[in-house]
Amino acid sequence: MPELRLNLVTREWCIIAPERSKRPETFKRVKLKKELRPFVETCPFCPGNEAKTPPEVFSIREGDSWKIRVIPNKFPALAYQGERERINDGLKRLVTGVGIHEVIIETPLHHMGMALLPLPSVADVIRTYKARFLQGYKDSQVDHIIIFRNHGEDAGTTLEHPHSQLIGLPVTPIQLRDRLESAAHFYDYVGRCLLCMSIEMEKKEESRLILETDQFISFIPYAASTPFHTWIVPKRHAASFGDITEEEVKDLALNLKTTLAKIHYGLDDPDFNYSIRSNGPKNGDSEYFHWYLSITPRVSKAAGFELGSGMFINPSLPEDSARFLREVKCPPES
Amino acid sequence: MPELRLNLVTREWCIIAPERSKRPETFKRVKLKKELRPFVETCPFCPGNEAKTPPEVFSIREGDSWKIRVIPNKFPALAYQGERERINDGLKRLVTGVGIHEVIIETPLHHMGMALLPLPSVADVIRTYKARFLQGYKDSQVDHIIIFRNHGEDAGTTLEHPHSQLIGLPVTPIQLRDRLESAAHFYDYVGRCLLCMSIEMEKKEESRLILETDQFISFIPYAASTPFHTWIVPKRHAASFGDITEEEVKDLALNLKTTLAKIHYGLDDPDFNYSIRSNGPKNGDSEYFHWYLSITPRVSKAAGFELGSGMFINPSLPEDSARFLREVKCPPES
Repeated sequence: MPELRLNLVTREWCIIAPERSKRPETFKRVKLKKELRPFVETCPFCPGNEAKTPPEVFSIREGDSWKIRVIPNKFPALAYQGERERINDGLKRLVTGVGIHEVIIETPLHHMGMALLPLPSVADVIRTYKARFLQGYKDSQVDHIIIFRNHGEDAGTTLEHPHSQLIGLPVTPIQLRDRLESAAHFYDYVGRCLLCMSIEMEKKEESRLILETDQFISFIPYAASTPFHTWIVPKRHAASFGDITEEEVKDLALNLKTTLAKIHYGLDDPDFNYSIRSNGPKNGDSEYFHWYLSITPRVSKAAGFELGSGMFINPSLPEDSARFLREVKCPPES
Repeated sequence: MPELRLNLVTREWCIIAPERSKRPETFKRVKLKKELRPFVETCPFCPGNEAKTPPEVFSIREGDSWKIRVIPNKFPALAYQGERERINDGLKRLVTGVGIHEVIIETPLHHMGMALLPLPSVADVIRTYKARFLQGYKDSQVDHIIIFRNHGEDAGTTLEHPHSQLIGLPVTPIQLRDRLESAAHFYDYVGRCLLCMSIEMEKKEESRLILETDQFISFIPYAASTPFHTWIVPKRHAASFGDITEEEVKDLALNLKTTLAKIHYGLDDPDFNYSIRSNGPKNGDSEYFHWYLSITPRVSKAAGFELGSGMFINPSLPEDSARFLREVKCPPES
């Protein structure tokens, strides 16, 4: 019998349909993956082609060469120049599209996705996220910042070279507002942070756990909407990613890299997205909101039912998928 | 300069990014489309293969042959047998997955998508939607019904033969509850139904209009989240699709078929989803909720930003897309 499970964070139901369910292995990549080379002459993100990108706004360097570069997106979704203006006209509500759209080039090596990158380099990426997140919120026209990563064509990447993106919006997404509101309701109703309690549950039940490190825990949520959907949550209650400590940066690097490597080796390098769901520093002291990183391997498609209802049909059991990932052994030094 | 536009129905912002924008023509299908034949021996939905499907629960017939068949889905997302039970266990919230999952086979002809189907057949499809919608709500275990259609592989179809689906859920999707709530807020704040007012605006401004027929209007919403996203809205205020009159059925057939044909011929038969967003008959008298049909051509991909924020970046201007569709001339008798 299928089950409907309620995600208390999004407040949405998900249909877990074991009658349609497939063994975890069946979600492995079927499309051929192009073999990538460490350097591609025509790639604007490869070393030597720095002039092909807008001037960098941040970098981490070692001697003469860069390890990480941050540049404004050449085709930004939001304009850097201009004033944030609000126009209300009848039923029309408009805010001028000013903001930030940055690209974080994670490594000089064209073929090194984050699952393969050495651990210190992953930590550098997270340090860069933090620096640009805090810098972005200094812009008074920015209301909310999203840090995200697209891996592979089905995840919306147009450029192969490993990179993340940061968008600083002149508005707050309603989805975030709704989640803040439901987190506040939960806090009122129960008296504790929902994600702090979820961590306790996942540690106790173990069945949906992927990896516990010193400071972070990765697991497949009880009501995961898609196969292998994974959350990485800091054990210490914090509402803003910007408050991450140096010790936590290193531990998140370990947890993120290992979790992504399990997905990479277990499912043959599927396309995926991840994003950081966080309050800004201004609301960093919230007792009821808890930031987290959300990974979505793109192994299934949203169809008319999902678009029409907001609910998802997950053909895999979260507990099965988590056990599968727990058992994936990654080669050393990967 | 990009614009952020607020969708008052979903309350979500959308980034309209003309800097990234493309001419409407560039959204045309690039992938080769398989040429379909009117009859495929191995297709379980083609005439003669009725024994390959579960027994039909409804049909429209002409003499000895069927024009439309409704069957339970062979691989249902919800079980027909069993009791709806609610289990609350710590943070876990579960409802047993009982409900309805039907397939509506729209025509005996394997190759006739709804854009090509003769008008009386489209009206039969809508009559069937209404009959199954009202029948489904008679089941006391059903809380909410979604009628939807997937066209093409990128829209999640696994079977080519033209068909729609109906899912009767034992819960109400939170997304619908949120929209009901925001529609009620709007009604409180303004004193009128939001969609009734939107119809007036779209008729007056004309720039986002695709097609006005006697009883329905199709247009691209001001804050459309994806290119060519289209709504078809009844001019008469009604909260439940189940209240559609016979006159409205015929007019919706004309509006839906023509709108889909414009998308078909204008964009070279793109994959698409549509769904009907409606209250059930129990809440059919709502003065603030207004049912509509929502069409999403699958010409763009959701990436990490969309998954991480709930907001969309639409690289097309709704007004450009609407003008493009208005100007598409469809061959006669299509």
